[in-house]
Amino acid sequence: MGKNIKRIGVLTSGGDAPGMNAALRAVVRACKYYQIESIGIRQGYEGLINNDMIELGPRSVKNIINQGGTILKTARSTEFRTPEGRKKAYEHLQKNNLDALVVIGGDGSFTGANIFHKEYNVPFIGIPGTIDNDIFGTDFTIGYDTALNTVVEAVDKLRDTATSHDRVFFVEVMGRDAGFIALNSGIASGAQDILIPEQRDSVEDLCDSLERSEESGKKSSIVIIAEGEQLGGVYEIAKQVKARHQEYDIRVTVLGHIQRGGSPTCHDRVLASRLGIAAVEGLLEGKTNLMAGIRSNKIVFTPIDEAIIKHNEIDTELIKVANILAI
Amino acid sequence: MGKNIKRIGVLTSGGDAPGMNAALRAVVRACKYYQIESIGIRQGYEGLINNDMIELGPRSVKNIINQGGTILKTARSTEFRTPEGRKKAYEHLQKNNLDALVVIGGDGSFTGANIFHKEYNVPFIGIPGTIDNDIFGTDFTIGYDTALNTVVEAVDKLRDTATSHDRVFFVEVMGRDAGFIALNSGIASGAQDILIPEQRDSVEDLCDSLERSEESGKKSSIVIIAEGEQLGGVYEIAKQVKARHQEYDIRVTVLGHIQRGGSPTCHDRVLASRLGIAAVEGLLEGKTNLMAGIRSNKIVFTPIDEAIIKHNEIDTELIKVANILAI
Amino acid sequence: MGKNIKRIGVLTSGGDAPGMNAALRAVVRACKYYQIESIGIRQGYEGLINNDMIELGPRSVKNIINQGGTILKTARSTEFRTPEGRKKAYEHLQKNNLDALVVIGGDGSFTGANIFHKEYNVPFIGIPGTIDNDIFGTDFTIGYDTALNTVVEAVDKLRDTATSHDRVFFVEVMGRDAGFIALNSGIASGAQDILIPEQRDSVEDLCDSLERSEESGKKSSIVIIAEGEQLGGVYEIAKQVKARHQEYDIRVTVLGHIQRGGSPTCHDRVLASRLGIAAVEGLLEGKTNLMAGIRSNKIVFTPIDEAIIKHNEIDTELIKVANILAI
Amino acid sequence: MGKNIKRIGVLTSGGDAPGMNAALRAVVRACKYYQIESIGIRQGYEGLINNDMIELGPRSVKNIINQGGTILKTARSTEFRTPEGRKKAYEHLQKNNLDALVVIGGDGSFTGANIFHKEYNVPFIGIPGTIDNDIFGTDFTIGYDTALNTVVEAVDKLRDTATSHDRVFFVEVMGRDAGFIALNSGIASGAQDILIPEQRDSVEDLCDSLERSEESGKKSSIVIIAEGEQLGGVYEIAKQVKARHQEYDIRVTVLGHIQRGGSPTCHDRVLASRLGIAAVEGLLEGKTNLMAGIRSNKIVFTPIDEAIIKHNEIDTELIKVANILAI
Repeated sequence: MGKNIKRIGVLTSGGDAPGMNAALRAVVRACKYYQIESIGIRQGYEGLINNDMIELGPRSVKNIINQGGTILKTARSTEFRTPEGRKKAYEHLQKNNLDALVVIGGDGSFTGANIFHKEYNVPFIGIPGTIDNDIFGTDFTIGYDTALNTVVEAVDKLRDTATSHDRVFFVEVMGRDAGFIALNSGIASGAQDILIPEQRDSVEDLCDSLERSEESGKKSSIVIIAEGEQLGGVYEIAKQVKARHQEYDIRVTVLGHIQRGGSPTCHDRVLASRLGIAAVEGLLEGKTNLMAGIRSNKIVFTPIDEAIIKHNEIDTELIKVANILAI
Repeated sequence: MGKNIKRIGVLTSGGDAPGMNAALRAVVRACKYYQIESIGIRQGYEGLINNDMIELGPRSVKNIINQGGTILKTARSTEFRTPEGRKKAYEHLQKNNLDALVVIGGDGSFTGANIFHKEYNVPFIGIPGTIDNDIFGTDFTIGYDTALNTVVEAVDKLRDTATSHDRVFFVEVMGRDAGFIALNSGIASGAQDILIPEQRDSVEDLCDSLERSEESGKKSSIVIIAEGEQLGGVYEIAKQVKARHQEYDIRVTVLGHIQRGGSPTCHDRVLASRLGIAAVEGLLEGKTNLMAGIRSNKIVFTPIDEAIIKHNEIDTELIKVANILAI
Repeated sequence: MGKNIKRIGVLTSGGDAPGMNAALRAVVRACKYYQIESIGIRQGYEGLINNDMIELGPRSVKNIINQGGTILKTARSTEFRTPEGRKKAYEHLQKNNLDALVVIGGDGSFTGANIFHKEYNVPFIGIPGTIDNDIFGTDFTIGYDTALNTVVEAVDKLRDTATSHDRVFFVEVMGRDAGFIALNSGIASGAQDILIPEQRDSVEDLCDSLERSEESGKKSSIVIIAEGEQLGGVYEIAKQVKARHQEYDIRVTVLGHIQRGGSPTCHDRVLASRLGIAAVEGLLEGKTNLMAGIRSNKIVFTPIDEAIIKHNEIDTELIKVANILAI
Repeated sequence: MGKNIKRIGVLTSGGDAPGMNAALRAVVRACKYYQIESIGIRQGYEGLINNDMIELGPRSVKNIINQGGTILKTARSTEFRTPEGRKKAYEHLQKNNLDALVVIGGDGSFTGANIFHKEYNVPFIGIPGTIDNDIFGTDFTIGYDTALNTVVEAVDKLRDTATSHDRVFFVEVMGRDAGFIALNSGIASGAQDILIPEQRDSVEDLCDSLERSEESGKKSSIVIIAEGEQLGGVYEIAKQVKARHQEYDIRVTVLGHIQRGGSPTCHDRVLASRLGIAAVEGLLEGKTNLMAGIRSNKIVFTPIDEAIIKHNEIDTELIKVANILAI
């Protein structure tokens, strides 16, 4: 089946992530290497629906490996969630002679491709592009390493002020459903406590931790809080801690969208390059409905249903590491 | 009078700013160079009141030129605002044989030193250390250039997402009374509009600007808003714009405290080094009640009253530059 | 005369510098603002000679303000130094209806424009784009501030190793004729000694400085050496110091071309934006044979002959600052 | 046996690497957590020989997780290679009541510890701290990820100039025996060719690659060359390529020691933290003569002999990735 693939469409979908351009570049160059054609679809599935596509060659993707965001643009398409939208998409896919799709995005984007495949039998392979690292079937998603470093660099700056003023900083980082960013950036930035969605925390425990910190001689602290944590949000948590410890000089910072952008790290560029090539090779070997990922530093393909339904779990060793270091 | 100065106390006060350590290092080494002693006072005026001081030599300040924050720590002392507080401060100053003070901070810190001088005749020279650049008597304050670059790097990351998603980002930057950070970082990050405290703006004008932007073919925009702007805050502004343009995909980001930290830029390190030396030399020449600053790249001393009362004005050329570039 | 200007050609010439794109963007947008046309000339004067030009509008220069290098590319044209080359250039200039030129580059580029003007009476204004800061008529050249920060960040990394191993690092930085980069980056990176072309130095003096450093308790040192210094180059200097002090653990690093690239700093972006607009406004006011620059933070125009012949001098205050800090 | 461990000595040895401080911090805090004492040994094995040690507690290692280099300093001790040196070391070890050692360094440092163990039966665990990633028994060494990003950021800057001037840059990166840095940074920086010690290359092949690049429309190229490559060094290679292609505008850059320094990335900080804790836990469980490493994201212990003798091999998939992307 893969033998008949002569022309691949590639799109980026969902929230943008640093390294999407590197993945796109790899898809396009792998197509050239295997002597097939590659077409860029703009704005995610919207570009299929609106027939907004562009022929891509090796030179069209030059000097983008170091750029954040995605030159194809991305969108969350509501129309593609309707049968009518997908019908239009299929018509344009046929019109453009696309034999298969590479979908760079998160689980929402994969779900769309999966439904599309069931209805129209379009082969596709997904590439995990999201900063949250919450997709099953890969040790790392594209953009995650860059986001971690963005957070850590930001908290390094906050620590200057925290230390100079003997303050407690509560820092909200991204991660609606997953604590990977919070846990790893928290360890790396020397956080006193880290609140993540996967763990039941309480303001009491947090206060205990801050009190221990004070007793051990610390004059300032950083607390990292994932946006998906369950205690009511960073401002509410700060308020409750302040109610118990009015002597604390507390500041809240929400890092926000800066975590999604920026030039990708080396790790994200290499990961994206490998997965982009793997996706093309997979399609040419007749694979479909899979996600290309990395496990133990090897390329692996995971059934897309698994990638969507299952979730990576937080490593309990890391939670222990965080606790030991906060001593 | 300056001839009798044998021992100088140095403190950092008010909000921390990148480059304060570089200024401190310069003060200490200049003291050594001119064969006098230097004493570091911890936590701003609190350290005078609480007799929290440390003898400093050239090696005590090694490898701090590149560090944000202040190794002396800083604080806003409420006690120093009382006659009793200043009395205690003076007693410890005498006890430690301090002949003069170098005060690294903003106008609040200078006001304190000024009152202290009137009461106890303690010679002092101020060094402008604040990211806001709103102190009269110097073209640049220490920390301002670093803050600008922190903002610009952050907005560069946001632009990746803005462009990838065709979004409008409203970004709040520091500047309660002054628009220097907003105006310069706005120009440097290609902002479509910039709202500053010094200018009367309106949501209508902002919407006009965004509409012009759209008509000219722009799909995404950045709007930089100083925290001291007069329209009710970034969230309120975003709400009002959204009310008129529901089709806009708007996101708000408050950069917050990351703007205060970080390793100082080359410019801030050199500026801080020059002002630190100038302050010591000034005291040795018998100067007092002055602020050391830079004008047209030359060291100048400004009467501290002027430095406190007057304010640098926004350059109207820059406002025009911002308008032309937003075309 | 300026009234007749309807179409301006803009080129970047000589060595590339961060901020050239920001200047280009400002030229193009200022042209639009003043309702005239702008044409980009590729590869410096080569593009005039080879008729390699492109119509530019406000959207052609989007998202380049943060990019190093120059999207127009640059070259050192040998053909433009010949009467025949300039004749071809003039023919293509006429063919493209260009009424004036904006030349972004260094003194070599300005010299070319000057000769071209004498022969063909083509109005032009120069914009100083070079990292070396050695052009008379402006306090800062475009790219200089970025280069300084690149050097300082690199030396901050070297200092980690120098300190960890008790080593002496000799670091060569750019500056064939001028010591601005060396002197300022040297102060900002805490150098023990700084060798620049403008000063007569000797290996004896350098050794004295390193010996004093050792006596004062320093275990590691950084020495910054401008490439144009007069003692025979960084490797030779290292060899001679080693001959006298075999106990020193010396390492040499030549920073090289990384100093020319990178995303421009806020300062360079604002400077480039201001000068780009000023150049267009100058031409429209009938000005020619001038360089737009910044003095005391105001736009000034300097006769191009002066800009070429004269040179900014090293501020002796800075040399003293460097000496005091090395105590 | 591990039960009797009450006091652990920790040292950093060999070339410094970013993340060594994070590892040290983790060792010290893990000791506190498990209620034993930790002693820092300065200058690697030299500190044992010269009895240069310091008691460390949780607060002694505050705010170092983000610092490059090593606060304990490091050295390559020649005296420790002699029986006499090791005898002195053992005497001081006994005098300080050290029950075990944690050695943060490379294979040379592990060899020393191994011999020392054979002679004096001192339990130890090694932690791989070197930017080269060439130590068997771990997927990543501490400092490697930071070095990769330093290289990639530097080459990003060079690419600005390469593209603006249509140049070919030959960039030498670290890696005397191993091509990990070259291969991964080469992929991430979009290199046209990558020369590594593990592969037999030739100037012919390199020229072929550059010619193909030109034919495919590329006007500029980056070639990454590991210092341990077999063709005679970057300058010699550049000379030979120039001899065949005089039309190429070639520049050589040797990145040098900047690759060893800098604030560690998030990845290196987390890795170092995990390995530091693992080493202490290992010793407490009675383990010795092992290296703590990470494989497939799990802590593993490898016999130190294996870690010294065996070497990680370059992944052939990555070589293929590099080739495909250079199309």
